[in-house]
Amino acid sequence: MQLGMIGLGRMGGNIVRRLLKNGHTAVIYDRDPAVVAKLAEEGPTGTSDLADFVAKLEKPRTAWVMVPAGDITEAVVNELARLMEPGDTIIDGGNSFWKDDIRRAKMLAEKGIHYMDVGTSGGIWGVERGYCLMIGGDKEAFDRIEPIFATLAPGHGDIPRTAGRNGDWARSEQGYIHAGPNGAGHFVKMIHNGIEYGMMQAYAEGFDILKNAASERLPEDERIQIDITEVAEVWRRGSVVTSWLLDLSAAAFMEDGELAQYSGYVDDSGEGRWTVQAAIAEAVPAEVLTSALYTRFRSRQEHTFAEKVLSAMRKGFGGHLEPKVPPPDVDK
Amino acid sequence: MQLGMIGLGRMGGNIVRRLLKNGHTAVIYDRDPAVVAKLAEEGPTGTSDLADFVAKLEKPRTAWVMVPAGDITEAVVNELARLMEPGDTIIDGGNSFWKDDIRRAKMLAEKGIHYMDVGTSGGIWGVERGYCLMIGGDKEAFDRIEPIFATLAPGHGDIPRTAGRNGDWARSEQGYIHAGPNGAGHFVKMIHNGIEYGMMQAYAEGFDILKNAASERLPEDERIQIDITEVAEVWRRGSVVTSWLLDLSAAAFMEDGELAQYSGYVDDSGEGRWTVQAAIAEAVPAEVLTSALYTRFRSRQEHTFAEKVLSAMRKGFGGHLEPKVPPPDVDK
Amino acid sequence: MQLGMIGLGRMGGNIVRRLLKNGHTAVIYDRDPAVVAKLAEEGPTGTSDLADFVAKLEKPRTAWVMVPAGDITEAVVNELARLMEPGDTIIDGGNSFWKDDIRRAKMLAEKGIHYMDVGTSGGIWGVERGYCLMIGGDKEAFDRIEPIFATLAPGHGDIPRTAGRNGDWARSEQGYIHAGPNGAGHFVKMIHNGIEYGMMQAYAEGFDILKNAASERLPEDERIQIDITEVAEVWRRGSVVTSWLLDLSAAAFMEDGELAQYSGYVDDSGEGRWTVQAAIAEAVPAEVLTSALYTRFRSRQEHTFAEKVLSAMRKGFGGHLEPKVPPPDVDK
Amino acid sequence: MQLGMIGLGRMGGNIVRRLLKNGHTAVIYDRDPAVVAKLAEEGPTGTSDLADFVAKLEKPRTAWVMVPAGDITEAVVNELARLMEPGDTIIDGGNSFWKDDIRRAKMLAEKGIHYMDVGTSGGIWGVERGYCLMIGGDKEAFDRIEPIFATLAPGHGDIPRTAGRNGDWARSEQGYIHAGPNGAGHFVKMIHNGIEYGMMQAYAEGFDILKNAASERLPEDERIQIDITEVAEVWRRGSVVTSWLLDLSAAAFMEDGELAQYSGYVDDSGEGRWTVQAAIAEAVPAEVLTSALYTRFRSRQEHTFAEKVLSAMRKGFGGHLEPKVPPPDVDK
Repeated sequence: MQLGMIGLGRMGGNIVRRLLKNGHTAVIYDRDPAVVAKLAEEGPTGTSDLADFVAKLEKPRTAWVMVPAGDITEAVVNELARLMEPGDTIIDGGNSFWKDDIRRAKMLAEKGIHYMDVGTSGGIWGVERGYCLMIGGDKEAFDRIEPIFATLAPGHGDIPRTAGRNGDWARSEQGYIHAGPNGAGHFVKMIHNGIEYGMMQAYAEGFDILKNAASERLPEDERIQIDITEVAEVWRRGSVVTSWLLDLSAAAFMEDGELAQYSGYVDDSGEGRWTVQAAIAEAVPAEVLTSALYTRFRSRQEHTFAEKVLSAMRKGFGGHLEPKVPPPDVDK
Repeated sequence: MQLGMIGLGRMGGNIVRRLLKNGHTAVIYDRDPAVVAKLAEEGPTGTSDLADFVAKLEKPRTAWVMVPAGDITEAVVNELARLMEPGDTIIDGGNSFWKDDIRRAKMLAEKGIHYMDVGTSGGIWGVERGYCLMIGGDKEAFDRIEPIFATLAPGHGDIPRTAGRNGDWARSEQGYIHAGPNGAGHFVKMIHNGIEYGMMQAYAEGFDILKNAASERLPEDERIQIDITEVAEVWRRGSVVTSWLLDLSAAAFMEDGELAQYSGYVDDSGEGRWTVQAAIAEAVPAEVLTSALYTRFRSRQEHTFAEKVLSAMRKGFGGHLEPKVPPPDVDK
Repeated sequence: MQLGMIGLGRMGGNIVRRLLKNGHTAVIYDRDPAVVAKLAEEGPTGTSDLADFVAKLEKPRTAWVMVPAGDITEAVVNELARLMEPGDTIIDGGNSFWKDDIRRAKMLAEKGIHYMDVGTSGGIWGVERGYCLMIGGDKEAFDRIEPIFATLAPGHGDIPRTAGRNGDWARSEQGYIHAGPNGAGHFVKMIHNGIEYGMMQAYAEGFDILKNAASERLPEDERIQIDITEVAEVWRRGSVVTSWLLDLSAAAFMEDGELAQYSGYVDDSGEGRWTVQAAIAEAVPAEVLTSALYTRFRSRQEHTFAEKVLSAMRKGFGGHLEPKVPPPDVDK
Repeated sequence: MQLGMIGLGRMGGNIVRRLLKNGHTAVIYDRDPAVVAKLAEEGPTGTSDLADFVAKLEKPRTAWVMVPAGDITEAVVNELARLMEPGDTIIDGGNSFWKDDIRRAKMLAEKGIHYMDVGTSGGIWGVERGYCLMIGGDKEAFDRIEPIFATLAPGHGDIPRTAGRNGDWARSEQGYIHAGPNGAGHFVKMIHNGIEYGMMQAYAEGFDILKNAASERLPEDERIQIDITEVAEVWRRGSVVTSWLLDLSAAAFMEDGELAQYSGYVDDSGEGRWTVQAAIAEAVPAEVLTSALYTRFRSRQEHTFAEKVLSAMRKGFGGHLEPKVPPPDVDK
């Protein structure tokens, strides 16, 4: 079937390519005409602006928005809302905040336009291997567009089947799910990323302790020199902590066991923060997911103000400088 | 080659079986003679006590101790130290504390006996699939016994090779490593388990937030009902959080998405605690690994005393009962 | 000067009493006429509804709203907005969310009405000792109402003066501050409560470890029986951890060192949650304030779903029940 | 009565002064003869080595050791053990590890020598105001030396009495306790310091969030400029978070609200680490006390290795550099 794609960056462009390769067609738009022209050489129909884009789509239209989350996505969705008609569908495939999905879906529903929020995992590998898709929105639109999702997803491949699953392959086993109503797709993707932070931090701390096992802070007879490149590799083989993130770590250590090229400055995207907010709203204790986020906050500062406050208090009671207040009122 | 095995529980027995199946021979001992007799039917030489066990081993002897860590392992090693001769080797394949390894190795070295500490991962799956082995001890003993380790390990199988690795398969790619001197094997296994705790907790918190996304604590229009069984399954397919622990979760949810059979009481073994101790000794911040441990501590109590202290303070300043102390000294 | 008070609960009623005792006058309203009538006996002018309340206030009017935060405060402020006139001032003395203050202030500014958000600490002790006040809003309104604030605050009392402070007493030394524009008052109060949570948890954990120092989980020769009632008391005397919260703890232990009357179920109010949200918005790592909040979340559940997920994974790899998925793909 | 003091640094010297001022006598020793000579001018009996020191003490002797914890204290105690006689008492007033106390006490008991472990809080303020003392050891020795402890402690002063306490002042109300058998004194002091870390971190995080409330990371209309010097001061007056540590913070901010003179590098002493170890041994969750410790670990590094591991993984799946491993095995 036909899909319209807005935003032809690495993700948007590759999604189009994967669809074309599997017999679908596409109408494409990007604010950079050169990008449109270049991708159009591979087959899809290029367009010059959003009005042109909408005009060239078959009804009911399906427009996948793959632009940066936040203001840009908001602007594109609003413009599409103006241009599109009842029965059409807008898909937000970016990393939007799930409450924005609920709000937008309501606004669009008033115009008879469907909205789908699609959490998309797989990154640069997706064009070849497929994307893991977590989809929110009404069932009617989902059913109509399912062939697109099924093509984009990895399919079942040769991953061992989970015990208890028999017969036809479920959607989840093919790598995509209809997670629920609007917001559900990005909510599930948000938690996916929250867990990702936690797992990454678990490995990171473990390797840090291994790395420092020969630290001069330790008593001399308790120091152990450990080759973490070999440790990461051996854990890939039959251990309990086997994972794709471990595979990536093993590859990074293979390149350089010191990771000297990395500064240690670590960004965070919105999903980690929203995960904590969701935990708080639900009153679910989420120590590990939150600590993983805070570590990243800390990594981007030379020192926190908090640390200076600690130093100041220590000076206050330790007397390295003359303290400025009397102690608790005793013995007078 | 020949291996002596002491302790024929699930792990010890299966290790023997995997060796026999691959052309090695074994001398076996267990404090329960019936267990010895039963396994002896499959080929290995049974023995009636540790003296008999040592006598039946070819020199230089290799004795693998697979009994509960702590006092029992200690007693067996001490008894073997008395019975064995220079050039022999004792292997501790259990979950011993790595500093105990260093101590024992020193004591045995004075008698000319080698000691190896082997962290063994793979559990009930090991007999068929192989064990991930992290080995500490002197190189001489390691070299002599390597055929045993190579047989027990999974081998390279068809796991994709890490980029940058070429030519002959390294030991780590076959699933075992010589991690370093004594203590190194159990140290690496300890960190493996510490990471395991952290990863498990990351998933657990994520699924908890998903489960509570429909909680009545939330505003009605922000509740989402999510089928976590399908979420766990879809994440196995091309997402970033793919792992064996996720596979296990997916299987557990398939059986019952409510996990109603589980009380939520979660034990911890020594490795998680020792990991935190190592982090502290090295001054490495290990928030996530520590929180994962504390969650388990908390899971085993109805309420902590700490929580009662909080309640008591709240009553103190909130006035639900008459507070028992005057407030800070103001305005008098 | 004259203050109007809406909401005559423990806080609102006592604020009125403290003002009357110091020469101010008051107009009062509560949705329960009996409460109005009763307090009116002590001098203030009772009113029967908000229209009556507004009518009886001298211009420019000053109305202090002391009702539960959230919908009720919102409704009262909106009703006052309808009834009051340019130059009047509405004070929200409750525990409102600071972003609501900013929103309300903007709405009221369009009508020429001032709005002040006042964080009020001191609880049941305030009527006698005074309230610690953190005030947000425009300077003009603040200046006009300052006599009220100065009366409600504790005054400097005989608390030792901070080094470097000389001459006239600053407002802060008298127990109230103009913290900044609207939102600032409740923001500072929010952080106050966030810190309060963290401090409480620090004491709580410390006493928990002391209480369990004689635990049977410990080796027999490492158990120590400690009388925490005496410990809390002695720390009040010249130690570094002296505080009012410690005073409250000492009093609670004096009553019963086991705290047997407390269940350990611990509530949290909005401020702790908003503090974490502010930390996240600012990318400030706030491990301790967040952990203190999560502990309370945990205290209110028998078991988390997360804990059940842990148990399920452990069963998966530990083999206590038959695992439902194959292990990572090795050696086949 | 007479006390012998070994180690005449700030603490040891001031303890002697406080005793002399209150009618006791002292025999003093320090490895630096000049220090001995100087303090001897104020009255106590100087000595030239430990043998001389022991010789000049009246029997039964009381020797207070106030030298750095660890190897130095160990050496001094061992030397005293050699020189002293049955019935004598050794007091360790430093910050020793409580398990060392238990070990030493056993060793000394075999010689008939008493041992007391005394946690001493009060620092540079102690000479004037008195020391908060937490004392472990046998009751017989405690009773004999109590006059010394009573003199060193602050006494009840004019701190308000805790409700429920009547009649004679308990020892705890005078600022010293017999906490229990050997180890108990330093155990209680250890927890005191653990709590101190947690409280400090709670304030530090709170002030950090206040400081960053005007951060440019925030939406422009959600930024608030807050004067934390005034906030710290106002909280000293009738708020719930009143404490001596807050007094110290207020003084530090008064000097410089930016705390520009502090680097933010924060040391930790043994007590914080031992507190966490005790929590783990007892299986008590101690999130806040542990996080407070980890913050200090982190403050002393430019970047952790863990952070580099995170960056490396992110590069692996985000594709900013060519990843080195294939993704999970799908769709082939």
